[in-house]
Amino acid sequence: MENIKSYVQQHKDRFINELIELLKIPSVSADTAYSQDVIDTSEAVKVSLEKAGCDLVEVCDTPGYPIIYGEKIIDPNLPTVLVYGHYDVQPPDPMELWTSLPFEPVIKTTDIHPEGAIFARGACDDKGQMYMHVKALEYMVQSNTLPCNVKFMIEGEEEVGSASLAWFVERNQEKLKNDVILISDTGMISNQQPSITTGLRGLSYVEVEVTGPNRDLHSGLYGGAVANPINILAKMIASLHDEDNHITIPGFYDKVQELSAEERAEMAKAPFSLEKYKNALNIADVYGEKGYVTNERNSIRPTLDVNGIWGGYQGEGAKTVIASKAFAKISMRLVPNQDWHEITELFTQHFTSIAPAGVTVKVTPHHGGQGYVTPIDSIGYKAANMAYTETFGVPAIPVRSGGSIPIVSLFEKELKSKTILMGFGLDSDAIHSPNEHFGIFNYLKGIETIPLFYKYFVELSK
Amino acid sequence: MENIKSYVQQHKDRFINELIELLKIPSVSADTAYSQDVIDTSEAVKVSLEKAGCDLVEVCDTPGYPIIYGEKIIDPNLPTVLVYGHYDVQPPDPMELWTSLPFEPVIKTTDIHPEGAIFARGACDDKGQMYMHVKALEYMVQSNTLPCNVKFMIEGEEEVGSASLAWFVERNQEKLKNDVILISDTGMISNQQPSITTGLRGLSYVEVEVTGPNRDLHSGLYGGAVANPINILAKMIASLHDEDNHITIPGFYDKVQELSAEERAEMAKAPFSLEKYKNALNIADVYGEKGYVTNERNSIRPTLDVNGIWGGYQGEGAKTVIASKAFAKISMRLVPNQDWHEITELFTQHFTSIAPAGVTVKVTPHHGGQGYVTPIDSIGYKAANMAYTETFGVPAIPVRSGGSIPIVSLFEKELKSKTILMGFGLDSDAIHSPNEHFGIFNYLKGIETIPLFYKYFVELSK
Repeated sequence: MENIKSYVQQHKDRFINELIELLKIPSVSADTAYSQDVIDTSEAVKVSLEKAGCDLVEVCDTPGYPIIYGEKIIDPNLPTVLVYGHYDVQPPDPMELWTSLPFEPVIKTTDIHPEGAIFARGACDDKGQMYMHVKALEYMVQSNTLPCNVKFMIEGEEEVGSASLAWFVERNQEKLKNDVILISDTGMISNQQPSITTGLRGLSYVEVEVTGPNRDLHSGLYGGAVANPINILAKMIASLHDEDNHITIPGFYDKVQELSAEERAEMAKAPFSLEKYKNALNIADVYGEKGYVTNERNSIRPTLDVNGIWGGYQGEGAKTVIASKAFAKISMRLVPNQDWHEITELFTQHFTSIAPAGVTVKVTPHHGGQGYVTPIDSIGYKAANMAYTETFGVPAIPVRSGGSIPIVSLFEKELKSKTILMGFGLDSDAIHSPNEHFGIFNYLKGIETIPLFYKYFVELSK
Repeated sequence: MENIKSYVQQHKDRFINELIELLKIPSVSADTAYSQDVIDTSEAVKVSLEKAGCDLVEVCDTPGYPIIYGEKIIDPNLPTVLVYGHYDVQPPDPMELWTSLPFEPVIKTTDIHPEGAIFARGACDDKGQMYMHVKALEYMVQSNTLPCNVKFMIEGEEEVGSASLAWFVERNQEKLKNDVILISDTGMISNQQPSITTGLRGLSYVEVEVTGPNRDLHSGLYGGAVANPINILAKMIASLHDEDNHITIPGFYDKVQELSAEERAEMAKAPFSLEKYKNALNIADVYGEKGYVTNERNSIRPTLDVNGIWGGYQGEGAKTVIASKAFAKISMRLVPNQDWHEITELFTQHFTSIAPAGVTVKVTPHHGGQGYVTPIDSIGYKAANMAYTETFGVPAIPVRSGGSIPIVSLFEKELKSKTILMGFGLDSDAIHSPNEHFGIFNYLKGIETIPLFYKYFVELSK
């Protein structure tokens, strides 16, 4: 497919500028202050699909943010690819750590991205990776090489649990009928070594509130005599892991899918340098569950992390106070066979049960999703691997990711089709962090690789 | 002293309004955003002392906020009372819990204060209690009943450690020469049962910072594989107390002054209802060090409380992030014979030593002060007790307070004189909390009682 290479070279400046315009809109779904920006972004996505060549594009209302649906049906008898992506982004804070503003994209070169990378919130997760598919469609339409039908479903609530997407998919199974689902919302090992994500972790995200005395108290007059909600919260959080960093919630591991020695040996083949890993994060050592290595801890094992904590005086100087309340946001990454509803319930029961007299505890579930594992012998996987092999010169390695795309298991359940996770980002792209970026190389390589997936998927489907 | 009663009745509206004006200035010493307001408050104090009848009032520059010094010397051969107070206040947050604005004083009645109480930050701690002494001086000057010399030393950094006061006292021992130091910055048992504070706890206040990875990370991609600074901080904080709520810092209790069974029995005589205590705070149970009762836990025993904690995402909704850093403000209340410098060092050594590989820990000492115990057979204590007995109809009970006024031990060391803590506030006045208030009854009763202290102190000194 020499044409796609030359087409990308010819139009790359426009491709980059179009993405930059999309990145300028702060579509933070977690914060209602940005709700109009999220709406504006959905409109921009709609227009981009129309321009790319969809015959039909709809703004589908939901209980939450709209879902943009687009399609180009060339022949009902040909296979249909359903592309999923999301146009919402994570909150940008902590703002002070950004070297450039999160919604004013700039191109900077890095050691890993000598050709430059676009720095902006959402550059990689997921506006950049989603937009690769829009540009790949543009090419296939312009060059009359689209070999099958294509449908797009781009949502605006992925970073807050995709509640409306579940609602939408359940109600539109015929409309969304497809032979394979294609998603670029994951990463690959390196720009020299592509990989395909074959597993995702599930998620249970809760917020906890510990209340002690009915008002803030003077720590001198009351210190030592009443339960301090912050000390208690710290104690409760600490008790959720034992000395081996196993999670102590009763029943938490009951349904965890254990991998065979063979599977673990296969995983261990993926290139990985613990030294580089530690150096990249500037940490003296890694830390995690006893009996598992780093690449297992962050993929095939469930985890519990505090994502945020706050209480009492956080200002300048000193305030000798015992706070009335302390809060934390806690998320658990789940592995196949763990049900997130059940885990959320187990957490709630346990966390409430360990609260000492003198405080009251409230647990509020935020959202969650199931884990997922995909086979590597499917037509979709083979087509993706052939596409990567052609554009990167080496076959892709299957890897289990620690991240969660809760809707993947939903798709399998509701739409009865497999999902192929063709990621082009890198772990170092700092998604969910300050200075998120997406390599120009990765962006253009994605646009170049995606049409090949269509080509091989249709060939293998014959 | 019938005259003081009638004088107070005659001028009480003015006394209240003058205090309200003083409370309107937000003199928050912990936050530099309020620095001009702190300066303005020192000016207002200066003017009030001049009006009250001081012959000399000076604004004394220090490395920090100015100290207002005032004096009225009627006869070098007569005793001299040194009045200490502070014009700075605690930060008002959490603002949302105030039923009226912290710096817009309003008078409201409560069950405990049927005659009404002034609600404002600093109403009790310490502007209200300090201003009682200014008005008592006004009376004694107006009625020509001032029986001795008086000096005022009003500082603006008490809530942040009184660093400049120590500097000032060391350099002005002759100027501050006195026979007794009188402070109203503590409480009493109730409006029916006066008490005199005979003991104060020391303080060591530190801020800790735990750093893990060099940037915020995606909790899915890294969760379980790296040390999460918030989880680690929670674990470290939790480990500072054992199952009996003893503090685990090696050497922490080595110098703690243990009370005899007799002393503890004497303490137990102070009227106290655990039910009322729990109901007032709306807690199901108290919580503290095994082997001690509530009134011992908050007075004769050292404690460790987290006053503030923060890290990661604290906004609306969910952010699946592993924060790079987590922070906490931690204070330890100390008892006689514990040295705050030594305890701060012990904490720093221990807290740093328990950090696991994978995080780095920084401990920053904020400030501190020594504990203090005063004898009850001194002339000053007897004079105070006689004054309370006359105005309340019952003798005062000696009590040990859990609070800290670090400079009291400094005064004894540098000025070689005893301090009498004549407090008129109540534990329920919510100092350091939202809705701080000071009863009109308490305010006027203080103005009425203080001149009697002068009278009896001079009589007993003859």
